[in-house]
Amino acid sequence: MNSAALPGFDDILAAAARIAPHAHATPVLRSRSIDAIAGCSLHFKAEPLQRAGAFKFRGACNAVWSLDAATAARGVVTHSSGNHGGALALAARTRSIPCHVVVPENAVAAKIAAIEAYGATVHRCAPTIAAREAACARVQVETGAELVHPYADPRVIAGQGTATLELLNVAGPLDAVVVPVGGGGLASGTAIAAHALAAECQVWGAEPSGAADTFESLRRGEHVTDFVPDTICDGLRGTLGAPGFALLRAHAVKVLTVDDADTVTAMRLLWQRMKLLVEPSSAIALAMVLGHRQRFAGKRVGVILSGGNVDLDALPW
Amino acid sequence: MNSAALPGFDDILAAAARIAPHAHATPVLRSRSIDAIAGCSLHFKAEPLQRAGAFKFRGACNAVWSLDAATAARGVVTHSSGNHGGALALAARTRSIPCHVVVPENAVAAKIAAIEAYGATVHRCAPTIAAREAACARVQVETGAELVHPYADPRVIAGQGTATLELLNVAGPLDAVVVPVGGGGLASGTAIAAHALAAECQVWGAEPSGAADTFESLRRGEHVTDFVPDTICDGLRGTLGAPGFALLRAHAVKVLTVDDADTVTAMRLLWQRMKLLVEPSSAIALAMVLGHRQRFAGKRVGVILSGGNVDLDALPW
Repeated sequence: MNSAALPGFDDILAAAARIAPHAHATPVLRSRSIDAIAGCSLHFKAEPLQRAGAFKFRGACNAVWSLDAATAARGVVTHSSGNHGGALALAARTRSIPCHVVVPENAVAAKIAAIEAYGATVHRCAPTIAAREAACARVQVETGAELVHPYADPRVIAGQGTATLELLNVAGPLDAVVVPVGGGGLASGTAIAAHALAAECQVWGAEPSGAADTFESLRRGEHVTDFVPDTICDGLRGTLGAPGFALLRAHAVKVLTVDDADTVTAMRLLWQRMKLLVEPSSAIALAMVLGHRQRFAGKRVGVILSGGNVDLDALPW
Repeated sequence: MNSAALPGFDDILAAAARIAPHAHATPVLRSRSIDAIAGCSLHFKAEPLQRAGAFKFRGACNAVWSLDAATAARGVVTHSSGNHGGALALAARTRSIPCHVVVPENAVAAKIAAIEAYGATVHRCAPTIAAREAACARVQVETGAELVHPYADPRVIAGQGTATLELLNVAGPLDAVVVPVGGGGLASGTAIAAHALAAECQVWGAEPSGAADTFESLRRGEHVTDFVPDTICDGLRGTLGAPGFALLRAHAVKVLTVDDADTVTAMRLLWQRMKLLVEPSSAIALAMVLGHRQRFAGKRVGVILSGGNVDLDALPW
């Protein structure tokens, strides 16, 4: 697959085969009490139980194992302050190749420690997008490492789509699938997989009110990239990528915004009723369902719980 | 089974068959990173994923479904400020019989709400053991309901033993099983099941330093009942019951004490690495293993994670 092209369903099937030896097929969980509260039948894909604690491992693993041997030998590089950095580091370790992660100086210490624990080389930089991209380019030039962008990469998008493949295989036909929206990689992969398996399945994106660039981009029909995120959903502060913008439009994905307070309420509900430690960026999908009960009443709804890498020292209550 | 007799392995097998239509066979979870930290191979029985959020449902369910029809029709009663109350309420609902739970006035509001949500009648009383027992006796006289004590009841002990039956079926032979110790119901059931299936398997109890009546009872060889608990492990504040004292001695269960600070550290580790919301009364078992690495080095160790009913408003950090 050309790394500049948009991925299709065949790429998701290929990704599923490629990552199967390394990734977990995470369980699909149910909760009678949350179903009663939501007024619909919810099927939760539990990606906090994925390796490295988030769906991000799927895309990173697919990218790493897509490389030809010569390219792989030079290693991979990305910039990330969150889950993608750890996921790529672990994916690189499954192939025993070098990994470089450019990390802004204000990143959470625990996340940097996790990246290093997986064996990657950490490169610190100033906390701006320009500094991150410059540092990344420098590593590429110096090492020949392959860039694996967190979401604007078709190999990553195809990998993320494998979660929905597994969800539909286990849960059976669904009327809707709800996913969190940050850079659009997960939402794009979800839409491709869902529509290939069930053309009538509606894909919904849940985006923080304080980082609603995707909502705005789809509403205006033009790619909005100038915004300053303000949300507790640290996994969803990124800007919608160009592939995501194209794919979400092509698949008529509907994005709704969610206030952080409602996300925290949904997160507490998931912790208390499912005993699963989900991060705010995951809980936002349930919050969207609870905020729009009439749209989902009586339906069979899949929810991608994307990750569980919570900073316990910064709990919002 | 006579409700005054000590239970045996046959009672656990009968309990397993009796509760199978109602209880979850919870998963046995592994974590490479926690194994690396502990220096042994850990097999976690995930009872936070049990119905009502704790192993307590097993014993309550076995007691409820052990009753003859005429006794069952009069209902069941217990006193509890915690998981057993909710578990008995839910168990009674599975048989559509009345349930009464005597609750001290200082109990957590969320736990009382959970008991009521399962359809039980809540009776409030002063927060003393004498007041709880008096209120319980009054309900028994007025309604004819059967008392189901949280741990000093052989039907309850037999039900709790089913968790270890499942653990050993899934994990295979284990060198040791570690359980939290409060009133001794879970520890007793665990010892009966473990030794019936594997005579050489050592059963360890983990008890809070601030509620170490079982440790003291076994050390002195006499049943210590006069102590004032002081621990964050709210599920382990009860006093060792008479059946538990007899069974833990008969099975040579070794009890070690754990400081609350170490329990909190282990709880954070379980939340972060396993993404499972365990309560302090569960995490104490892992804390004991981590505090005595040399005893478990290289061994195959089962750990009963007993419950996940955390009061999120009272997190200890």
